[in-house]
Amino acid sequence: MINKPIKPVVVDTSRSAYARLKPAPVTAVTLTDGFWAARYKLNRETMLLAQYAQLEETGRINNFRRAAGKLDAPFAGLVFNDSDVYKWLEAAAWVLAATPGGALQQKVDALIADIAAAQCPDGYLNTYYALERAGERWSNLRDQHELYCAGHLFQAAVAHYRATGATSLLTVAQRLADLLCATFGPGADHRQGTSGHPEVEMALMELYRATGEARYLKQAEYFLNARGQGLIGGRDYHQDHVPFRQMPRLAGHAVRALYLCSGATDLYAETGEPALGEALARLWGHMTARQMYLTGGLGPRHEGEAFGDDYELPNARAYAETCAGIANVMWAWRMLQLNGDALYADVMEQALYNAVLPGLSLDGMGYFYVNPLQSDGTYHRAPWFVCACCPPNVARTLASLPGYIYSLTEDTVWVHLYAPNDAMLTLPGGREVRLVQRTRYPWDGNVTIDVLSVGEFSLRVRIPAWCQADAAVLLNGEPLSIAAPAGTYVEVRRSWQVGDSLCLRLPMRVRQIEAHPYALENSGRVALMRGPLLYCLEGVDNPDVDLRDVTLPLEEFAIEETFMPTLLGGVSVLRFGAEGVPPDAGWSGRLYRPVQQRPVVRRPLMALAVPYYAWANRAPGPMQVWLRRG
Amino acid sequence: MINKPIKPVVVDTSRSAYARLKPAPVTAVTLTDGFWAARYKLNRETMLLAQYAQLEETGRINNFRRAAGKLDAPFAGLVFNDSDVYKWLEAAAWVLAATPGGALQQKVDALIADIAAAQCPDGYLNTYYALERAGERWSNLRDQHELYCAGHLFQAAVAHYRATGATSLLTVAQRLADLLCATFGPGADHRQGTSGHPEVEMALMELYRATGEARYLKQAEYFLNARGQGLIGGRDYHQDHVPFRQMPRLAGHAVRALYLCSGATDLYAETGEPALGEALARLWGHMTARQMYLTGGLGPRHEGEAFGDDYELPNARAYAETCAGIANVMWAWRMLQLNGDALYADVMEQALYNAVLPGLSLDGMGYFYVNPLQSDGTYHRAPWFVCACCPPNVARTLASLPGYIYSLTEDTVWVHLYAPNDAMLTLPGGREVRLVQRTRYPWDGNVTIDVLSVGEFSLRVRIPAWCQADAAVLLNGEPLSIAAPAGTYVEVRRSWQVGDSLCLRLPMRVRQIEAHPYALENSGRVALMRGPLLYCLEGVDNPDVDLRDVTLPLEEFAIEETFMPTLLGGVSVLRFGAEGVPPDAGWSGRLYRPVQQRPVVRRPLMALAVPYYAWANRAPGPMQVWLRRG
Repeated sequence: MINKPIKPVVVDTSRSAYARLKPAPVTAVTLTDGFWAARYKLNRETMLLAQYAQLEETGRINNFRRAAGKLDAPFAGLVFNDSDVYKWLEAAAWVLAATPGGALQQKVDALIADIAAAQCPDGYLNTYYALERAGERWSNLRDQHELYCAGHLFQAAVAHYRATGATSLLTVAQRLADLLCATFGPGADHRQGTSGHPEVEMALMELYRATGEARYLKQAEYFLNARGQGLIGGRDYHQDHVPFRQMPRLAGHAVRALYLCSGATDLYAETGEPALGEALARLWGHMTARQMYLTGGLGPRHEGEAFGDDYELPNARAYAETCAGIANVMWAWRMLQLNGDALYADVMEQALYNAVLPGLSLDGMGYFYVNPLQSDGTYHRAPWFVCACCPPNVARTLASLPGYIYSLTEDTVWVHLYAPNDAMLTLPGGREVRLVQRTRYPWDGNVTIDVLSVGEFSLRVRIPAWCQADAAVLLNGEPLSIAAPAGTYVEVRRSWQVGDSLCLRLPMRVRQIEAHPYALENSGRVALMRGPLLYCLEGVDNPDVDLRDVTLPLEEFAIEETFMPTLLGGVSVLRFGAEGVPPDAGWSGRLYRPVQQRPVVRRPLMALAVPYYAWANRAPGPMQVWLRRG
Repeated sequence: MINKPIKPVVVDTSRSAYARLKPAPVTAVTLTDGFWAARYKLNRETMLLAQYAQLEETGRINNFRRAAGKLDAPFAGLVFNDSDVYKWLEAAAWVLAATPGGALQQKVDALIADIAAAQCPDGYLNTYYALERAGERWSNLRDQHELYCAGHLFQAAVAHYRATGATSLLTVAQRLADLLCATFGPGADHRQGTSGHPEVEMALMELYRATGEARYLKQAEYFLNARGQGLIGGRDYHQDHVPFRQMPRLAGHAVRALYLCSGATDLYAETGEPALGEALARLWGHMTARQMYLTGGLGPRHEGEAFGDDYELPNARAYAETCAGIANVMWAWRMLQLNGDALYADVMEQALYNAVLPGLSLDGMGYFYVNPLQSDGTYHRAPWFVCACCPPNVARTLASLPGYIYSLTEDTVWVHLYAPNDAMLTLPGGREVRLVQRTRYPWDGNVTIDVLSVGEFSLRVRIPAWCQADAAVLLNGEPLSIAAPAGTYVEVRRSWQVGDSLCLRLPMRVRQIEAHPYALENSGRVALMRGPLLYCLEGVDNPDVDLRDVTLPLEEFAIEETFMPTLLGGVSVLRFGAEGVPPDAGWSGRLYRPVQQRPVVRRPLMALAVPYYAWANRAPGPMQVWLRRG
């Protein structure tokens, strides 16, 4: 009845093992309540409408009307502004699938009509290169984001098709994709080139999956293989410094690098090419062991929005673009589908809560582009950006979140994320399985999965790596004598009856996390985590101390956890005794001095920490994640 | 006979106190031997000739010939390439003053002729805006460096005039300066504007001092006052975000900010305007207490070559441009002249040895633009740069170094720096004083100053702030019963006889320096200094350990100092027992983990440290300044 849990494994690059898991469709799962449902609703009711208004006000949608000849106005904004519209459309499509009709439906339909009208007879579509710049098509693939914008069109079209079954946008996408196939390729009768900003690779893979047209897969493979040959300048900023399969580590622009990895993983999932799988495993391993913030954020450098050196992880000066956090989720999700290794799900969850969500204000009206782990209080969210990649990226992530919860293999449902939902899943073998999740996660580690179907199949439930104590699994209230180690999926196989209930008990204790000693800024410091959530101190909760002076005891100390339903939309806060240890008097006016022991003031204080994702939603003030110890 | 030493004071902004000290002329002092004489000679015999060849090869000098109509070729290089030529000329002029004639003289004379020939009839001179771009003059003061290049011409001209007495270049400079005065100003009949890259301010002040023409002072004041009014875009990158006198701290591009401060100090030295003095004191205090590397380097950010937030001082990722170190010396020197406060001399010396000198390879053929305090071994010096501001800046600093050693007040010689030299000084009161310094400084803290003149006057000798034990002053071999606290000038006043000898004993012990606790990367770390020199570990000397793992004892430990005459041109090295403490086994493949005590390997080792200025002159390898402790 019960199998032993699978063990964590490295990426298995043997051909037989690739892409074991199939994602459950976004449309098969409905978020019903709790943490993520609230954000899903915020997206539907607030964010998408506010973003649409921005797209209109900033001329992004008018650019399509202009290209369609409906409007006489100059092109507005940045060269890649089409992509913001497509990302919004992708988000809106997923939301419409769950709740069709209404104002959003009208906007989407009208927008698709505008987009279709802007398409050239030969299938070309990019509003910047419309009309007077038509002769400059493909003239600068490195900088001008044509293929990037095309990719976002493809993703929006696939989402719209999957969400609604309509092919109106898919047809537009395929016409452009077919033009790409006809234009670019390895042969002498094709142009050579690839995109300075990866994105089209995964988009073509999704188009391949949606249509079954193998030429799109081949085209994605061509664009991937064209890198590292100097076609677009040879810089690591564009991931063109070395062929992808030979990259030792991620470098250059973080979002670009991670989008490329996502596309490469999609390709590997279909081809199982060993060299590609080895590269992905190498890059992933290096990234998580040397380059990732504790938030799951990536790309520490402001200069070039880029990956830095190993262990280069500044806190106040972190870049960690919200889009890079999203891209981390996207890549982790794709790696997870390869073999069901829980380590990918752990990073996906870590980034979702701590690298993506902080990019969004609690009211849905403000966004971070940059996500520091320490602030002096002068950094705030903004409603929109000239380069507005992040807001619609957050929107499409939230809109597609139902699709991140489950995967399927022959007769198994994999449960990756915990959030109240109602799922009607069809296993590859044909069996229909309805599951209902109930949980207060991430505030509580108790999760109940009600089975509303009959028959023999497996549930594989994830025991997060953050579980420090043994997790427990209960069936209909009875503990199963089953090992449930952290960082694995536990399989429960049986002949299920309607009304069966599987419960997880994931002990959620506050963890003090330390960083590798080569990450210099965090030497002698700890960060607090509870469950999947990273915590931080904010000045507004700790007004009587400079946060840089807060010092935690070396020995064990009590941390009181309290759920406060009215604070920050409802959060568990952490309260604990600490000390305020300001720099001693000998530092007055000095930055350096000979080592000396001077009396320091150690003032006891009660500190209050809130989830990092919720920072900067109240009175402006300092924030700090990593706290001194000792 | 002996006065008590003056006390450190803050900048006295009362009108009576400004510019007490007069610099001794560069030409009055001859470096005779030792540390700096060797570098002066390297500059004369190697650097200046190699740099001239670069100026020729890269078309920088041809740009003048082109503007003069002697050459038909496109403008070569960057818009500010004239400035590299001027800086080289400034350096060469000072060297010629000491050793006229020869190939260098011919090059200088020919170059001045080319420059003069390139000047327009109305005095305008900038080779980028010559010929076909003549109509675009002054069209973009923010980005195009016209006033910056003009400033470097003025400085070169003043140097040439002071060094040789010839007015050939000074005349060219004055014609351009007069055009600036006629063109820019506060009135309605003048253009409004100021330079995106400060430099012209201090250059105009030097031109004022060299010629006595008050309009140049007024013009410098106008350009300073024109900042912060949005004339050049209002960004802190250009120091245009706020009027200078209201700046709370230095921000934006570091070299620009420091050049501006240097010019403002020159202005204050002449006007004594209280608000200006207050701003300078405020900016200096903030900079040294919050923004300066232990090297004396400034500007931590690669992005914008800029100042960062307070305490933002990354090591491996330091920018700390060599030119910013030079600018620190320039500003400190000017502040020092205001009131003789030794704190400025301390920073000047610190930056000279540890922020300027590392920019130069020991063979005089390689330069750093960026000066990290930690390296993985992949960073090396280059013979030249497309943007070649640093090499000729190092050259002019070395060439003018004799002028940094002494200042003069009515009947007092101030001795700021210690280096063997022969000085023939004329006090403002008219008395001639010949001094001869003998010392092995910076390897040894014993300094002998032989007096070769007769009469009553004072010597004020600097007791560096780095003296942790009491310094001693001896007259003709007999200790004086005189307090000589660190960080002051000690005055010895007497009726001197030829053959009198004043000796300083500056105890030079190795110091373990710690950084302010808010400088996160240096938490729990120390750096080693001895005398004015900062030390570092290099992989080549410590091959059996990852430098990041070197850990110093918490308790006192012995450090053996040895002068090695054949190593790195002759350096004192430091040897000491330490431990190699690699990350424990639990870190394998991990970047974060719950706090835990795991057994670590503590392997005893003998570490060898070399002066930081001498790093990267042998086999490529890692380097580290700040070392773990405990």
